[in-house]
Amino acid sequence: MSTVKSPLPDEARKVTGAALQESLVDLVDLHLLGKQAHWNLTGRNFRSLHLQLDELVDLARAHADTVAERAVAIGVNPDGRARTVAETTKVHQLDAGYLQDDKVVAAITDLLAQMIQRFRDRIETTDDSDLVTQDLLIAVAQDLEKQHWMFEAQR
Amino acid sequence: MSTVKSPLPDEARKVTGAALQESLVDLVDLHLLGKQAHWNLTGRNFRSLHLQLDELVDLARAHADTVAERAVAIGVNPDGRARTVAETTKVHQLDAGYLQDDKVVAAITDLLAQMIQRFRDRIETTDDSDLVTQDLLIAVAQDLEKQHWMFEAQR
Amino acid sequence: MSTVKSPLPDEARKVTGAALQESLVDLVDLHLLGKQAHWNLTGRNFRSLHLQLDELVDLARAHADTVAERAVAIGVNPDGRARTVAETTKVHQLDAGYLQDDKVVAAITDLLAQMIQRFRDRIETTDDSDLVTQDLLIAVAQDLEKQHWMFEAQR
Amino acid sequence: MSTVKSPLPDEARKVTGAALQESLVDLVDLHLLGKQAHWNLTGRNFRSLHLQLDELVDLARAHADTVAERAVAIGVNPDGRARTVAETTKVHQLDAGYLQDDKVVAAITDLLAQMIQRFRDRIETTDDSDLVTQDLLIAVAQDLEKQHWMFEAQR
Amino acid sequence: MSTVKSPLPDEARKVTGAALQESLVDLVDLHLLGKQAHWNLTGRNFRSLHLQLDELVDLARAHADTVAERAVAIGVNPDGRARTVAETTKVHQLDAGYLQDDKVVAAITDLLAQMIQRFRDRIETTDDSDLVTQDLLIAVAQDLEKQHWMFEAQR
Amino acid sequence: MSTVKSPLPDEARKVTGAALQESLVDLVDLHLLGKQAHWNLTGRNFRSLHLQLDELVDLARAHADTVAERAVAIGVNPDGRARTVAETTKVHQLDAGYLQDDKVVAAITDLLAQMIQRFRDRIETTDDSDLVTQDLLIAVAQDLEKQHWMFEAQR
Amino acid sequence: MSTVKSPLPDEARKVTGAALQESLVDLVDLHLLGKQAHWNLTGRNFRSLHLQLDELVDLARAHADTVAERAVAIGVNPDGRARTVAETTKVHQLDAGYLQDDKVVAAITDLLAQMIQRFRDRIETTDDSDLVTQDLLIAVAQDLEKQHWMFEAQR
Amino acid sequence: MSTVKSPLPDEARKVTGAALQESLVDLVDLHLLGKQAHWNLTGRNFRSLHLQLDELVDLARAHADTVAERAVAIGVNPDGRARTVAETTKVHQLDAGYLQDDKVVAAITDLLAQMIQRFRDRIETTDDSDLVTQDLLIAVAQDLEKQHWMFEAQR
Amino acid sequence: MSTVKSPLPDEARKVTGAALQESLVDLVDLHLLGKQAHWNLTGRNFRSLHLQLDELVDLARAHADTVAERAVAIGVNPDGRARTVAETTKVHQLDAGYLQDDKVVAAITDLLAQMIQRFRDRIETTDDSDLVTQDLLIAVAQDLEKQHWMFEAQR
Amino acid sequence: MSTVKSPLPDEARKVTGAALQESLVDLVDLHLLGKQAHWNLTGRNFRSLHLQLDELVDLARAHADTVAERAVAIGVNPDGRARTVAETTKVHQLDAGYLQDDKVVAAITDLLAQMIQRFRDRIETTDDSDLVTQDLLIAVAQDLEKQHWMFEAQR
Amino acid sequence: MSTVKSPLPDEARKVTGAALQESLVDLVDLHLLGKQAHWNLTGRNFRSLHLQLDELVDLARAHADTVAERAVAIGVNPDGRARTVAETTKVHQLDAGYLQDDKVVAAITDLLAQMIQRFRDRIETTDDSDLVTQDLLIAVAQDLEKQHWMFEAQR
Amino acid sequence: MSTVKSPLPDEARKVTGAALQESLVDLVDLHLLGKQAHWNLTGRNFRSLHLQLDELVDLARAHADTVAERAVAIGVNPDGRARTVAETTKVHQLDAGYLQDDKVVAAITDLLAQMIQRFRDRIETTDDSDLVTQDLLIAVAQDLEKQHWMFEAQR
Repeated sequence: MSTVKSPLPDEARKVTGAALQESLVDLVDLHLLGKQAHWNLTGRNFRSLHLQLDELVDLARAHADTVAERAVAIGVNPDGRARTVAETTKVHQLDAGYLQDDKVVAAITDLLAQMIQRFRDRIETTDDSDLVTQDLLIAVAQDLEKQHWMFEAQR
Repeated sequence: MSTVKSPLPDEARKVTGAALQESLVDLVDLHLLGKQAHWNLTGRNFRSLHLQLDELVDLARAHADTVAERAVAIGVNPDGRARTVAETTKVHQLDAGYLQDDKVVAAITDLLAQMIQRFRDRIETTDDSDLVTQDLLIAVAQDLEKQHWMFEAQR
Repeated sequence: MSTVKSPLPDEARKVTGAALQESLVDLVDLHLLGKQAHWNLTGRNFRSLHLQLDELVDLARAHADTVAERAVAIGVNPDGRARTVAETTKVHQLDAGYLQDDKVVAAITDLLAQMIQRFRDRIETTDDSDLVTQDLLIAVAQDLEKQHWMFEAQR
Repeated sequence: MSTVKSPLPDEARKVTGAALQESLVDLVDLHLLGKQAHWNLTGRNFRSLHLQLDELVDLARAHADTVAERAVAIGVNPDGRARTVAETTKVHQLDAGYLQDDKVVAAITDLLAQMIQRFRDRIETTDDSDLVTQDLLIAVAQDLEKQHWMFEAQR
Repeated sequence: MSTVKSPLPDEARKVTGAALQESLVDLVDLHLLGKQAHWNLTGRNFRSLHLQLDELVDLARAHADTVAERAVAIGVNPDGRARTVAETTKVHQLDAGYLQDDKVVAAITDLLAQMIQRFRDRIETTDDSDLVTQDLLIAVAQDLEKQHWMFEAQR
Repeated sequence: MSTVKSPLPDEARKVTGAALQESLVDLVDLHLLGKQAHWNLTGRNFRSLHLQLDELVDLARAHADTVAERAVAIGVNPDGRARTVAETTKVHQLDAGYLQDDKVVAAITDLLAQMIQRFRDRIETTDDSDLVTQDLLIAVAQDLEKQHWMFEAQR
Repeated sequence: MSTVKSPLPDEARKVTGAALQESLVDLVDLHLLGKQAHWNLTGRNFRSLHLQLDELVDLARAHADTVAERAVAIGVNPDGRARTVAETTKVHQLDAGYLQDDKVVAAITDLLAQMIQRFRDRIETTDDSDLVTQDLLIAVAQDLEKQHWMFEAQR
Repeated sequence: MSTVKSPLPDEARKVTGAALQESLVDLVDLHLLGKQAHWNLTGRNFRSLHLQLDELVDLARAHADTVAERAVAIGVNPDGRARTVAETTKVHQLDAGYLQDDKVVAAITDLLAQMIQRFRDRIETTDDSDLVTQDLLIAVAQDLEKQHWMFEAQR
Repeated sequence: MSTVKSPLPDEARKVTGAALQESLVDLVDLHLLGKQAHWNLTGRNFRSLHLQLDELVDLARAHADTVAERAVAIGVNPDGRARTVAETTKVHQLDAGYLQDDKVVAAITDLLAQMIQRFRDRIETTDDSDLVTQDLLIAVAQDLEKQHWMFEAQR
Repeated sequence: MSTVKSPLPDEARKVTGAALQESLVDLVDLHLLGKQAHWNLTGRNFRSLHLQLDELVDLARAHADTVAERAVAIGVNPDGRARTVAETTKVHQLDAGYLQDDKVVAAITDLLAQMIQRFRDRIETTDDSDLVTQDLLIAVAQDLEKQHWMFEAQR
Repeated sequence: MSTVKSPLPDEARKVTGAALQESLVDLVDLHLLGKQAHWNLTGRNFRSLHLQLDELVDLARAHADTVAERAVAIGVNPDGRARTVAETTKVHQLDAGYLQDDKVVAAITDLLAQMIQRFRDRIETTDDSDLVTQDLLIAVAQDLEKQHWMFEAQR
Repeated sequence: MSTVKSPLPDEARKVTGAALQESLVDLVDLHLLGKQAHWNLTGRNFRSLHLQLDELVDLARAHADTVAERAVAIGVNPDGRARTVAETTKVHQLDAGYLQDDKVVAAITDLLAQMIQRFRDRIETTDDSDLVTQDLLIAVAQDLEKQHWMFEAQR
C-alpha cells in the first residue's frame, strides 16, 4: 500500500505529527461539545448563544480538517474516531441534559482557555520541527483566542 | 431550569426519544468515520472517493442536527458527546492507519447497509408513536439508501 | 367559470378542505401576530427576539401559501381575508401597545403549543382522507414544533 | 416599561401617527387581498395575473413593515392585527370563492385608485407634521401608482 | 458484475420496483411532451404558456431522476429509453405540428389528471411495500396536483 | 392558426428543416441514453462516470432546445416525442439492466463518433441552405467532439 | 489623434464598415421602439408583452454594442446618435400614444421580418469582405429570427 | 382602447407630464451620446473613460425608464422615439468620428451642467403640481450632479 | 487646479455646504464610536450588541460617503480628517476601557437622539437652499431614527 | 465588570498591546485620510485613483478591525476614538481642500513607506512577545507593501 | 495506449493540427508576456493598464485551453511547454526590468496586430480543412481584434 | 523611470529577490506542465486527473502572481517570460505526446517532491532576510505539500 513520503526528517516528523494528532483530538471534541451545547441550551440568551455555538462548531470543523490533512501530508495518519477522541481528549466535558446559558458561557470560556495553552505549547514545539505546520497552528490559535474573548466578554 | 413541554404523551415521547437518540449516535459516528476515511485513504480512486466521502460527511452532519433538534423539540435531551458515541455506537469501526480505496468502499457499503436496517426499524416504531418524527427518519433513510447504492455500485 | 376538478372523492375533499382552511387561518393569524410583536417589542432581548419573530413570520407566510394552494389544488377555495381570519381564528390574541420581551416569549410559546395540537388533530384526520395533504401538514407541524422549542427554551 | 422618546412634538406625533396607522391598515389589507386573489383566480390570464399579484403582495408587505417601524420610531404603537384590520379597513373587499381574471383586474385597479387618494391626503397632512414620514409615504405612493397603471393597462 | 443489495424483501422490492418504473415512464414522457408543446405552441398566450411549460419540464426531469435513482437504490434497474417509453407509456399523446394555446391547456390538464390518478394508486400500493418510496411518490403527486390546478385554472 | 413565416426560400427551408429534425432526434436520444447509463452504471469508476454522464445530458438537452427552436424559427415544426425518437433514431441503443463502466465508456465513445459524422454532413448541407443554422450546428459539433475525446481518452 | 489600424484591406474595410453601421442603426432603433411599446402598451396581454419587449430591448442593446465595437475595431467610426438614427433608419416606426397589444405584436413581427432580411444581405456581403464580422452578424440574425418566431407565434 | 385614469387633476397632469417628457428626451439622448463617446474615444485615458461612460449610460437608461413609466402612470404617453429625441433635444451634440479623451470630458461636463439646470427647473415646477414626481426628479438630479462632479474633477 | 462648478447660487451653496460638513463630522464620529463600543463591550448581551453596533457602523460609513460626495458635487470640500472630527464634533464621547452593555445602550440612544435633532435642523435649513441635499439628509434621518428606536427599545 | 483573561504573561501582554494600539491608530488614520483624498481629488487620473483609494480604505478598515479585536483578545483595550487618533497619530496629514492627483500619489506613497517601517519594527518586537500577534502584523505589512508599490509605480 | 480517433481525414487533420499548435504557442506566449507587463509596469496609467493586462491574460488563457483541447479532440497532441513556446514563438518579446506604461501600450498593440494576421491566415487555411476549428479561430480573432483596438486607442 | 523603493536593506533585498525569482520560475513551469498533462492525458482515470490537474494549475497561477508581485513590492523585477522559464527551470519536464494516467501521477508526485525541497530551502533563507516574504513562501509550501499528498495517495 502506498504511503506518503514525508518532506520532513524522521524526528521532526514524529514531533510534528504528535502535535497535529493532539490538535485534532482537541478540535473534534470541540465541535462535538459545541453541538451538544447548541442542542441542550436553555435560558434568556438561548437564541444568541445557539447561533454563536454553531459558529464555533463550523470553525472547529474547518480547522480539524486542515490539521488532519496536514498530518497526512507529512506522512502521519490522523485518527479522529469517536473512541480515540473519547479516550485521549483533555477537554473538560459537559454534562448530559439541559444546559443553562450562563453555565455554558462559563464552561466554553474555560475549556477554550485551556485548549489555547495547549496550542501555544504546540506552536513552541513546532518552531523547531516544522515552520509550515507552525503557521497553521498559529491560525488556529488566533481563532480560538478570538472566540475565547467573545465568550468571556458575556460572562 | 426551563424544560420543553412535549407535544407527545409520555409513552410516545419515550419511544420516539429513544429512536432519535440511537439515530443521532449512528449519524455522528458516520460523519466521524467518513472523515477518518477521507483523510487516510490511498489507492487509484483516491480523488473520487475523497470527494464522495465529504458528501457523505455533509449529509450525516445535516441529518444529525435535524435529528437532535427534533429530540429536544419533543422534550428529550440528545447526547452526541464523544464518549456516548464511542460506547453506544453499533457502527462497525474502521482501522487506524492508511485505508485502501476498495476496502473503504466495501466497509462503507456494509456499515450503511446495517445502518439502513436500523433506520427502517425506527420508521416502524415511530409509525405509532409520532408521525412527525417518522417523516424525518424516512428522509434520512432515503439519503442513506441512495448513498449505499452509490458506494455499492463501485464495489 | 372554470372550477378545479378534484383528485379526491367528495367526502374526502370536504374533510381535507376543512382541515386546510383551518390551517390557513392559523398561519395567517400567526404571521400577523408575529409582525405585531416584531414592531411593538421592548426589553433587553429586543434585537434577538425582533429577528427571531421575523423568521417565524417568514415561515408562517410560506406555509400559508402552500396550504392555500393545496386547498385550491383539491378544488376547495381558501379564504384568507382579514374578516374571515378575525372571526374564525382560534389563536390567542396579543394586546395593543408595547409588548415586554418576556411576555412575548411566553405568549408565543403558548399560542404555538395550542396551534401544534390543532395541527396534530388535522394530521390524524387527513390520514384517512388524503395522504398528500397529510404530508404537507406534517411538514408544517415539524417547523412549528421546532419554533415552539426555540421560544420555550428562553422562557 | 421603556417607551420610545419621539423626535416630534406632541401634536405632530399624533397627526403623523394617525397617518401611519391608517397606511398600515391599507397595506396589510392589500397584501391579504392580493393573496386571496392569487389563490382563487381563474381564467385565460391566470398565470400572468397570478405572478403579478405576488409582486403586489411583496411590495405591500415591504411597505407595511417600513410604515409600522416608522410609527414606532416616532413613539406610536402600530396595530396590524387581523381584527383591527378587519374593523378599520377602507379597502373594498373581494368575494369568497373563484375570482374571474377580468374581474380581479377591475377590482384591484379600483381599490388601488382609492388607496392612492388616501395616500395623497396623508402626504398633504405630513407636509406640516413630519417631512421624514412624508418622504416615506411618497415612496409608497410612487409604487402604488405604478401598480395601478399596470393593472389598468390590461383592463 | 456488482448488483445492488436491496434493503427490501423480495416481494416488496418487486412491487415497489414496478411502481417506480411506471412512474419513470410517466415522467419521462411528460417532459418530452412538455418540450413538444413548448416548441410548437401558437396563440395569444404563447409567451406565458411557453414559460409555464418549461417549469413543468424542469419539474418532470427532476422527479424522473429521483424516481430512477430510487429504483436502483432498491436493486431494480430503471429503464427510460425512448423505445421503452414509447411502448409502455399511458400518457395521451400530442399531435405533430402547431399546437393552439387553448388546446394545449386542455390537453395538459387532462393528461395530468390521469397521471395523478396513477400516482395515487402507486401511493396506495407502496403503503405496504415501502414507506420510503411512498414518501417520494407523495412529493411527486403534490407537485403534479399543483400543476394540474394551475393549468386547469386558465382553461 | 398562425404559422411562422420563414426567412428562407422554400427549398432552403425544406433542406435545413430536415437537418434540424434529424439533429433533434440525435440529441433527444443522446440525453435519454445518457440518463439510462447514469442510473444503471456499475464499476470502479462509478462516481466519475456518473457525474460525466450528467454533463453530457445537460449539454444534449441544451442543444436539443436550441435546435428545436431554430426549426420553428424557420417555419418547420420540430418533433421530439418518444415514438418519433424511437422510430427514427440512428443512435446505437444501450441494453437494459446494469451497465459496466468500461462498456459504457466504449459505447458512448462509439455512438458519439457516429453522431459527429452525421452532424458534419449536416454542416455541409446547410452551407448552401442556411448559414445561420450552420453556425448553430457547428457549435453542437464542437461540443460533441470535445465530449468524444474525453470519453475516448479513458477507454 | 490616434486612429485604429485596420486588420482589413481598404475595400473590405469599407464594405464591412457600411454593413456594421447599417446594423447599428437597425439595432439602436429597435431598442428605442421596443421601449416605446413597453411604456405605451395596453390590452389583456399587457404584462406578458411588457416583459417580452424588455427582453427584446436588452438583446438589441447588447448586439448594438458588439456591432459598434466591431466597427471601431476594424477602423470605422460607428454613429449611433439620435439624428443619425432618425434620418437613416429603415425600420417602420410606431405611432405616438397608447398601443393596443395585438397591434404591437403585429408591428414588431413585421419590423423584425424586414430587419432579418437586411441582416441576411449583410451576411452575404461580409462572406467575402470579413469572416470575423460575418460570424457576429450571424449571431445577431439567430437572435432576431428567434424573437420573430416568438412574436409571430402569438399573433 | 383603455386609458390610464390619472391620480392628478387635469392642469397638474399637464404640467407634470410636460416635465416628464422633457426629462425623458434628456435622458434618452444622454445614453445615446454616452455610447457614442464610449465607442469613438481615443487617448491616454481611454480605458478609464470608456468604463465611466458606460456607468453614465446605465444610469441614464435606468432613469429614462423610471421617468417614462411615471408619465404613463399619471396618464400621459411618453415618447422616446429617435425622431422625437432628435427634434426636441436640447442636449449639445457630439461630433462624428474619433473623440479625444479630454474633449469628451469637457463636453460631457458641459452637457451635464446644462441638463442639471433643466432638471432643477422641473423640480421647481413639480413642487406645486405633483410631489411624487418631484421626488423622482430629485433622485435623477442627485445622480446627474454626482456624475457632473466626477467628470469635472478630471478636467 | 480644477474646481467643481456648483449648480447652486453662492449663498445657497454656503448654507448647504455647512450643513453637509456638520453632517459629515456627525457621521464619521458615529462610526468611530460605534467601532469603539463594538470592541470594548462586555456583558450578557455582548453578542447581540456587538453585531448591532456593526450595522450602525456600516450605515454611518455609507451615509458619510454620500454626504461628503454631495458636498464636493456642489463645490464644497468635505473634511473628514481625525483632527477636524475631534475638534468640531458635537457627539458625546465614550470613555476608554471596557464598556458595560447597558451603559452602551444608554449612551448610543442618547447620542443618536441629539444627532437626530441636529439633522432635523439641517433638513429645515436646506428646505430653502437645496431640495436635492434635503432629500439626502431626510434619508439619513430616517435611518438614524430607526436605529434610535432599536437601541431605546432595549434600554 | 468582566475583563478578558489574557493568554499572555504580563510583560508580553504589555509590549504586544502597545504594538497593537499603535497599529490601530495607524490604520484608522489611514482610512480617514484615504477617504479624504477619495473625496477631494482632482486631475486627469481622478477616476482611477478615486477607485484605488477606496480599495485602500477597505483594506485599512478590515485590518483595523482585526488589530483591535486582537488587542481585546489578549486583554488590552483598543482605543480608536477621533481624539486619540488625532493626538497620537504619526501619519503625515493631508491638507484641506482640493488635492491634485499627482500630489495624492506622492503623499500616499510616502506615508505608506513610513507606516511600513513602523509595522516592521512591531514585527520585530512581537517576535519575542507573541507569535500569534506577529503573524497578524505580517499580514498587514504584506498588504501595505503591495499598496505602496502600486502607488509608487504610478508616481 | 489509447489515441483519439480523429473525425477528420488525415490531410485535413495534419493541416488543422498545425494551425492549432501555432495558435497555442501564440496564446501561451501572450499570457506569459501579459503577466510580465502586469508586474513590471510603471507610469501614470499604472492601475488602469495593470487591470487591462489581466483581462488580456484571462482571455489568452481561456482561448489557449480551448485551442489545445480542440487539437486533442481531432487527434493531435498540443504542446504548450515552456521550451516549445520559447523556441517556436513568433511573438516579439518584452525586455526584462521595469516597463514604462506608454511603451507597454505600443508593444502590446504591435504584437497583437501581428498575431491577428497569423490568426487570419489560419482562418483561411481551416476554411478547407475543418469548419469546426475555423469557427473557434474566428472567435479568438474577434477577441484579439477588440483588444487591439482598446490598446491602440490609448496609444 | 520610477523604481520602487524597497522596505529592505540591500543585502536582504538581493537574497529575498533571488528566492522569489526562483519560486516564480518553479510556479510558472508548474502551471505550464499541469496544463500539458491536462490536455494530453489518457487512461482510466482520465476525468478525475483532468480535473485535479486544473486545480493544480489554478493554484500555481495564483501563487505565481503573489510571488511576482511580492518581488516588485521589494524593488526586484520578476521575470516570467517563456525563455527565462525554459532556461532556468529546475523542474523535470514531461514528454510530448499522450501521457498515460499512472505515469502522470508518478511524474507530478516526483516533481512536486523536489519543488517542495526547494521551497523549504527558501523558507530557511528568508528567515533572516525578510519575514514577510517567508510567510508567503510558507503558504505556497503548505499548498504544494497538500497537493503532493493527494497525488502520491493515488500512486
